[in-house]
Amino acid sequence: MTRESDLIASLRRLATDPGARGLMDDAAVLEVGDMRLVLTHDMLAEGVHFLRDDPPEDVAWKLLAVNLSDLAGKGARPLAVLLGYSLGPSDWDARFVDGLGRALRGFDIPLLGGDTIAVAAGTPRSYGMTAIGVAEGAVPSRSGAAPGDLLWVTGSIGDAGAGLAIARGAEGPAALLERYRTPMPRLEAGRALAPLVSAMMDVSDGLLIDASRLAAASGVAALITLDQIPLSQAYLDLAGESRGARLEAATAGDDYELLFTAPRERAPAIHALADRLGLPFSRIGGIEEGSGLRVLDAGEEVPLPPKLGFEHGD
Amino acid sequence: MTRESDLIASLRRLATDPGARGLMDDAAVLEVGDMRLVLTHDMLAEGVHFLRDDPPEDVAWKLLAVNLSDLAGKGARPLAVLLGYSLGPSDWDARFVDGLGRALRGFDIPLLGGDTIAVAAGTPRSYGMTAIGVAEGAVPSRSGAAPGDLLWVTGSIGDAGAGLAIARGAEGPAALLERYRTPMPRLEAGRALAPLVSAMMDVSDGLLIDASRLAAASGVAALITLDQIPLSQAYLDLAGESRGARLEAATAGDDYELLFTAPRERAPAIHALADRLGLPFSRIGGIEEGSGLRVLDAGEEVPLPPKLGFEHGD
Repeated sequence: MTRESDLIASLRRLATDPGARGLMDDAAVLEVGDMRLVLTHDMLAEGVHFLRDDPPEDVAWKLLAVNLSDLAGKGARPLAVLLGYSLGPSDWDARFVDGLGRALRGFDIPLLGGDTIAVAAGTPRSYGMTAIGVAEGAVPSRSGAAPGDLLWVTGSIGDAGAGLAIARGAEGPAALLERYRTPMPRLEAGRALAPLVSAMMDVSDGLLIDASRLAAASGVAALITLDQIPLSQAYLDLAGESRGARLEAATAGDDYELLFTAPRERAPAIHALADRLGLPFSRIGGIEEGSGLRVLDAGEEVPLPPKLGFEHGD
Repeated sequence: MTRESDLIASLRRLATDPGARGLMDDAAVLEVGDMRLVLTHDMLAEGVHFLRDDPPEDVAWKLLAVNLSDLAGKGARPLAVLLGYSLGPSDWDARFVDGLGRALRGFDIPLLGGDTIAVAAGTPRSYGMTAIGVAEGAVPSRSGAAPGDLLWVTGSIGDAGAGLAIARGAEGPAALLERYRTPMPRLEAGRALAPLVSAMMDVSDGLLIDASRLAAASGVAALITLDQIPLSQAYLDLAGESRGARLEAATAGDDYELLFTAPRERAPAIHALADRLGLPFSRIGGIEEGSGLRVLDAGEEVPLPPKLGFEHGD
C-alpha cells in the first residue's frame, strides 16, 4: 500500500452515496430532478501528468481533454467546466489561458467559474478542473461486464506513450507527440456507445491496468489478445511489431480511448456504429468467469508484465 | 495590476457564458432542463488561506465551509462536493480526512468524487473543492443593488479576524479562534433571504472590500455606518469599542456572513426572518447613486483605510 492508496481508501469510506460509485469510476452521478448529471474532477501535476517543458497551451488542452474523457467514458454530454489554477510565471500563465481558450472553443464548452491561488515561486505546478455533463440515459459503469461479453477499445493504443518518449527526447514523428500532448476525448463515441455497452471507461493509465480495474469492478476476469490491440501505422513504424512493442503500447497510458464490454450479439451494432463515426472499434478480447487479467499473444498465454500501467502512488 | 488580477482578467475574457456571471460572482449558474444549478470551486492554500499550524481537521472543515458559503450567498441548497487533494505527510492526511468526514456529516453533504495527486515533500499544501447546489428560484447576484436599498449583514463581523490573530499567538478566547478555524456558512439564511434581496454575497475577504465589490457590480455606491456593524461581545471584550477596532473588524475577512441589499419596504419581512432563524440581521448602511464606498462613524465621514480587505495578489 502506498500513501496515496491509503488516502484513497480512507476517502472511499466517506463517499458512501451511491452516486459516488465508491470513488472507483471515472465520474460520479448526481440525480437532480429528472436530470442525470455526471461529474468529474481531475488534476494535472507537473512531473506526474505533464513535463516541465510541455508547452503551456498543450497542458491547458490536456487538462480539459482528460476531464472530458471521463465524461466520454460515461456517455455524458459536457455542459460546463470550472478551473482551479495555481499561478506560475506570467508568460506561462498567458500561454496557458490562450491554450485553454482554444480548447474551450474547440470543444464548445463554457468555462463557468473556478478559483486562482498564488503559490511560492518554484512550487511545482498543479491544476484542477471540474467537468459537469448530462447523460441522456443510463450511465455505464465499470462494474457491468459479464462472462461471455466481448472486450473492445476505440481508436489506437500506444501512440501517446510513444509521444511521451518523443517529448523526452526520443526520435519520432510529430503525430505521436501530438497524441500525448493534445489527446482527443471520444465524446461522440461515448454517447453513442452508452446504450450498447455493459461496462465502459476511458483508458488513461494503460490498457492492461484499466482492463484489470474494469474486471475487478465487475467481479470477472478479462482476457486480452495482444495481437488484436489496435496500433497505428505511425506506432508500428517507430516501435515495430514485436511482442515487446505491443506490451509497451498496452501499458503506457494517456491514450484517452474508450474501453468497453458488450454482449456478443451486439457486435454487429457496434461495428455499424464504428462505420457511422469513422472511428475504428477493435475487439481485443473477452470477459470470463473468475478474476484478474490474462494476456494471450499468437494463441499462447503471455506472463503479465511487472507494471500494467500507471498507478496512483507510482 | 498584480499578476493574479491580470490572469483573472484574461480568464474573464474566456468566460463569456452568461452563467459565468463574468467570474465576478461567488458562484456560477447552470440551467439544466428546468433545474437551476449553482456551482463553485474554491481553493485553500497554505500560508494564504490557512496557517501551517492550523489543525488539519479544521482545514478540511474550512474547505467545505467556504465552498458552502458561496452557495449560501446565492441562496442555493448544496447537493454534493468533489475534492481535489494534494498528498501531504500521512498523519496530516489522516487527520484531514477525519475532519472532512465530520464536516460532511455535519452539513449532510455527500462527497461524490475528486482526484488526488502526489506532490514533492515540502511543497506548500493546497486543496480544491467544487460544490454543486440547486436554487429553488432566482439566484441573487452581486449586481442587483439599487439606490435607496438598505445594506444588511448577518451575524457578527470581525470574530474570525480576531481568531486569526489568536491562531498567530495573540491572547484571546477560544470562541473567536473557532470562528476563524471552523466558520459556519449561512445556508439556511441564504435560502430564506434569496427571494427578499436585490443583491447578496458572502463576506469572505472583508466587509468593506466585499461591499465595494457589490457596489461596483451593481453600478452604485455603498454607504456603511461603522457604528452599526454588528460586533460580538467576545470581540468587543478583546478589541474594545474604538473606531480602530471597528475598522479592523470591517477589513479582516473570513467572516462567511452574508452581505445583502433589499428595498427599504422589505425591512419588516427581513426582521421577521431574522427572528424566525434566531440569527441577527443588522442594517449597516444603504445604497446610493454613484460609485465606490463611503464609511460614516458617529455621523461623520471617515477616510477609507488603505486596505479594505484581502485582495487576490496580496
